[in-house]
Amino acid sequence: MPETKLTVGIQPHSLDRDVTAKLDQCDNSGHDFLVVPISHPSFREKMEQTRDLEYMSRIQAVQAPFTSEDLFIRTAKHCERLVGLTSPWVRMDSPDERERYMAEKVLEKELSWSAHIGLSAVLMPLLTTSPDRFTNYARWLCRILHDYAFLQIWIRIPLLLNSESTDPDESVGLQDSWEQWALLKQICDHSPRLQLALEITADLPDPKFQSQWYAEPVKCLIIPTTTFTTNAKGFPVLSKPHQNFIQRLTQLTHYAVIEERQVEDRVCETGNHHKFLRYLSQNPGELSTLESFAAGYKDYLQAPLQPLMDHLESATYATFEQDPVKYQLYEKAVHQALVDRFPSATESDHTCVIFVVGAGRGPLVDRSLAAARSANRHVRVYALEKNPNAYVTLQHKKETTWHEQVTVVFGDMRFWNPPEQADILVSELLGSFGDNELSPECLDGAQRLLRPGGISIPSSYASFVAPLSSSKLYNQVLALNGPAHFQTPFVVLFDAVDTLYPPQKVWQFNHPNPLLCTGDLTAPGLRSENQHNARYAVNTFSTDKAAFIHGMAGYFDCVLYKDITMSIHPRNHTPAMFSWFPIFFPLNKPIFAPKDAVVETHLWRLTSSSKVWYEWCVVVKSAATDAEAHSTPLTSTTIHNLNGSSYWIGL
Amino acid sequence: MPETKLTVGIQPHSLDRDVTAKLDQCDNSGHDFLVVPISHPSFREKMEQTRDLEYMSRIQAVQAPFTSEDLFIRTAKHCERLVGLTSPWVRMDSPDERERYMAEKVLEKELSWSAHIGLSAVLMPLLTTSPDRFTNYARWLCRILHDYAFLQIWIRIPLLLNSESTDPDESVGLQDSWEQWALLKQICDHSPRLQLALEITADLPDPKFQSQWYAEPVKCLIIPTTTFTTNAKGFPVLSKPHQNFIQRLTQLTHYAVIEERQVEDRVCETGNHHKFLRYLSQNPGELSTLESFAAGYKDYLQAPLQPLMDHLESATYATFEQDPVKYQLYEKAVHQALVDRFPSATESDHTCVIFVVGAGRGPLVDRSLAAARSANRHVRVYALEKNPNAYVTLQHKKETTWHEQVTVVFGDMRFWNPPEQADILVSELLGSFGDNELSPECLDGAQRLLRPGGISIPSSYASFVAPLSSSKLYNQVLALNGPAHFQTPFVVLFDAVDTLYPPQKVWQFNHPNPLLCTGDLTAPGLRSENQHNARYAVNTFSTDKAAFIHGMAGYFDCVLYKDITMSIHPRNHTPAMFSWFPIFFPLNKPIFAPKDAVVETHLWRLTSSSKVWYEWCVVVKSAATDAEAHSTPLTSTTIHNLNGSSYWIGL
Repeated sequence: MPETKLTVGIQPHSLDRDVTAKLDQCDNSGHDFLVVPISHPSFREKMEQTRDLEYMSRIQAVQAPFTSEDLFIRTAKHCERLVGLTSPWVRMDSPDERERYMAEKVLEKELSWSAHIGLSAVLMPLLTTSPDRFTNYARWLCRILHDYAFLQIWIRIPLLLNSESTDPDESVGLQDSWEQWALLKQICDHSPRLQLALEITADLPDPKFQSQWYAEPVKCLIIPTTTFTTNAKGFPVLSKPHQNFIQRLTQLTHYAVIEERQVEDRVCETGNHHKFLRYLSQNPGELSTLESFAAGYKDYLQAPLQPLMDHLESATYATFEQDPVKYQLYEKAVHQALVDRFPSATESDHTCVIFVVGAGRGPLVDRSLAAARSANRHVRVYALEKNPNAYVTLQHKKETTWHEQVTVVFGDMRFWNPPEQADILVSELLGSFGDNELSPECLDGAQRLLRPGGISIPSSYASFVAPLSSSKLYNQVLALNGPAHFQTPFVVLFDAVDTLYPPQKVWQFNHPNPLLCTGDLTAPGLRSENQHNARYAVNTFSTDKAAFIHGMAGYFDCVLYKDITMSIHPRNHTPAMFSWFPIFFPLNKPIFAPKDAVVETHLWRLTSSSKVWYEWCVVVKSAATDAEAHSTPLTSTTIHNLNGSSYWIGL
Repeated sequence: MPETKLTVGIQPHSLDRDVTAKLDQCDNSGHDFLVVPISHPSFREKMEQTRDLEYMSRIQAVQAPFTSEDLFIRTAKHCERLVGLTSPWVRMDSPDERERYMAEKVLEKELSWSAHIGLSAVLMPLLTTSPDRFTNYARWLCRILHDYAFLQIWIRIPLLLNSESTDPDESVGLQDSWEQWALLKQICDHSPRLQLALEITADLPDPKFQSQWYAEPVKCLIIPTTTFTTNAKGFPVLSKPHQNFIQRLTQLTHYAVIEERQVEDRVCETGNHHKFLRYLSQNPGELSTLESFAAGYKDYLQAPLQPLMDHLESATYATFEQDPVKYQLYEKAVHQALVDRFPSATESDHTCVIFVVGAGRGPLVDRSLAAARSANRHVRVYALEKNPNAYVTLQHKKETTWHEQVTVVFGDMRFWNPPEQADILVSELLGSFGDNELSPECLDGAQRLLRPGGISIPSSYASFVAPLSSSKLYNQVLALNGPAHFQTPFVVLFDAVDTLYPPQKVWQFNHPNPLLCTGDLTAPGLRSENQHNARYAVNTFSTDKAAFIHGMAGYFDCVLYKDITMSIHPRNHTPAMFSWFPIFFPLNKPIFAPKDAVVETHLWRLTSSSKVWYEWCVVVKSAATDAEAHSTPLTSTTIHNLNGSSYWIGL
């Protein structure tokens, strides 16, 4: 379970020299930490006096150490409860070289001191004026990230730039703060050390732009006292849209700062603001069954299963058997199939043959028997399993529970020669992306086991894909250390992501496979390339906001039988079913899609005689304009997992 | 000198089974090689008959080996004089999976055979229809490049797409062939193995789009017979624009193919076309002095000199001393400075003191003495040199030639304490980028040697920069094997490049340095950071064609004295001066600038107490539109050579 406690700090409007007194005050008022300037305002005067001489590099005043009077934070004491602010008066974006030089020197001194005493973090602004000079600042930040490898640096970014500014000069900046942040990330090569402190401004951007931040490394929220309103009881509260947004954000970070702001002549001081924030973070709405189950798995990367090559462990079976919904749906599907196949219950001479292929520890056998009872049909069930360990369990169940109604067989459905053919073939071979655990190959191989007109449960499944933004997932793949990890899909429950586009269908498999209905199918053929299960899909996505694309999210949607379906597609996710998390196809480099661009995903399902694998590629094109009838390519990734070099599923 | 002989092949319109006879014919008509289909048309029928069964992977006809009748090229004999054509009828861009599958299998068989017999190259088309399916083809090409590491694959690209097509379906493709090629390169991760065969269509694109191809790996020109016209004598010739374009291209490649084309019912056969091409390639216009000198250096990457840290070799001095222009300009400058400093020649009691700082083997001493003679002024020359080996040569010249008029001193200009101050300080410390051999640091250190009002020759120099496209230079840096090479500038004479934009000024240094005029300058101070020589420049470039940017070209422009200047800026390059080639700042990944984008270059000159270095970064922004007053960032490189990690010049 994620920690629900919010760590709340204060950034006071004014400060005496004595930080310790302020810390005590902070403690007593129920706050956890204090955000204070590193150096004292008097340091500015001192620096400005010597600036020009300094610049000529003859008098070394700036290089000289701080004196105690220059500082607010003078010792390492309480450092774990202090976040430092760099001097707000320095001008890294000045057109004057001397000013920039001075700014660099002052900031370096402050960071050097912060690193020395081990301050918990340093909060720095994101420059908003002068887009040209922004790159200069970005370069300097790259250097700082490189030089101070153990210092946490939080870049402060207001949700809306200059929303309160009346200075026309300041609005000459970049369009919005996310775009500036995006440029900073590119220049810093998407360094995982870039973290941001998001200022929750009184005005909020449109919800579609709010979600951009879910994909970013938000380390801390900064909420000025002026963003709060007061309720009828005089208690500080936030508007409903603010509440929703902050509630979502506190799932991603546990740090918040209440910043004291002045309105006209009056300082709007901190009071019970932190209580309201804590209340918000502890009330993330009612958890669904899926959410409760999944809480510990958020954004955790798992390698997809290889059930055909590997034998599952008992615990894995046990987890999947706990799904409260999936097996109910299977039971309904078998029931309906039985009724359709044998419309009259009285034909007692007709016994329906059910093959459960890949029976595992037997849950589908149980459900098939239950369906037969509820449908009042005679059944003869064969439980086929290739995992020798699960086979032991099946034998035990036959002896103790199923008896002669069930025949337990050890073998692979692709090569089994049964004594008779089946009316109904029941299997559960789907992966997060539908076909990624080789259900098509297995069921095509088992198709000859089915009588003409026989029923496969599931009868079809489709895969869906959508480009996705998530710095967190990108950084997690990066942390696995090795380029091959970017060529491998992962099973993951998405949390810190911006799902940019609704998923689109990529392909579908049907069973029985109409391509294989010649009747003379023999197992050896299926050891060849099974090219008929190769696929290639192009999907095109359009949106009106800029984004970094870090990969593609994959889902599936399955028809068990007629209208009995199950799905992990976000649009119609089967309620409470937790057997599958989505799949994630990462990109080895985040790719930038500007506003109004068209994003094309290319996905291949490729086959050889021994394996199946996916390859993928994303191309960004400019939208077709009136002047030009076609869109032109802007950027493209390379082909991921070319030739199945890093990831494949063995046949 | 580059090879001037053009290797010309024929692609015949029709072909008997007997390739050998055609090869003899090719020989006899003065051609060097033959371009022929790998497989015979009968192979198509065979394949199409078995296609559907094959697709089901049960009959293995496609995987079966070629039979002799399937092929035009049946043996490895003459392979070095054959270029293979893959089957033109295969449909890699078909929407039908079976057709695509068939196409892949056929092409793979052909390539496998070509690799086996060691064909000199295989020519393959660039798909032009269906932009969606293009990515599928690109993926397949990536795979082929990977699987056939020793096979040369030439991608055939027409200069203008569909210029002769009347099929409206075919014009639904991408805008132009360069854009398609650009996308292919991105998908293949800019593989150096991607080479192109450029078809010279009868219509040529605008010259600005012609130059795009200079930056690409053009391996071969394909000139259809129909592109030629016939002159009054019945000889095949090309239009003047075609001649100019092909002349430039034959500096980049030595392979050409004459392709026989049919016009209505008549095949336009090869005749004397190759003679005209050979004539063109051997007449690259009159060579300038610079071009003659430089022919062997084209696109050759050299590490910039480090004259302050290292001692130059005698041969290096000898090369530079050969420059026919540079020292004439210095002599003129010293002459003019002498005349200005001592307006009356009769003041014989005034002896002008000239310091030649960094005298090397003495060419500037000779020129200073010659200037004194021509100006009829008395001079006392001090020749200062820190290279102990050059110092020996200087002593020898004093003894044999200069005698008492010249004082030879061993030492570094930054630390020398001379017996008197100078009227004129002469130096030649410029690098390809002006200040990159630390002229600013040296001359600032020597400034205290100058009398008030004294003259520095040179008196100023400015650096210029422009983004540049060149696959060849990118691949050459890549071949150096190691990411650090992309963080290092190179001195290089550009050839296979597209200079996209006119260079812009980045910064300038003046001597004497007005910042240093306080008079109490002492050498120790200059050992500090000399921040006053740090620089940061942002330059903005706009163009109306798309391009990959592989780096930045750097130049300088220098005022020796008043109107006596020297320059390697392409706009006003000092004629015949060959002492400097331009500098090249590479980018670690080619960056794509779409049509109408704005390219921002960021360049830093940074300093510490022991070194000077450059850092650079390129940002691409969308152009400001009417709807949005500012441009938004699209892509950015990272900061190159951050903290001088890979390249710096020692003080």
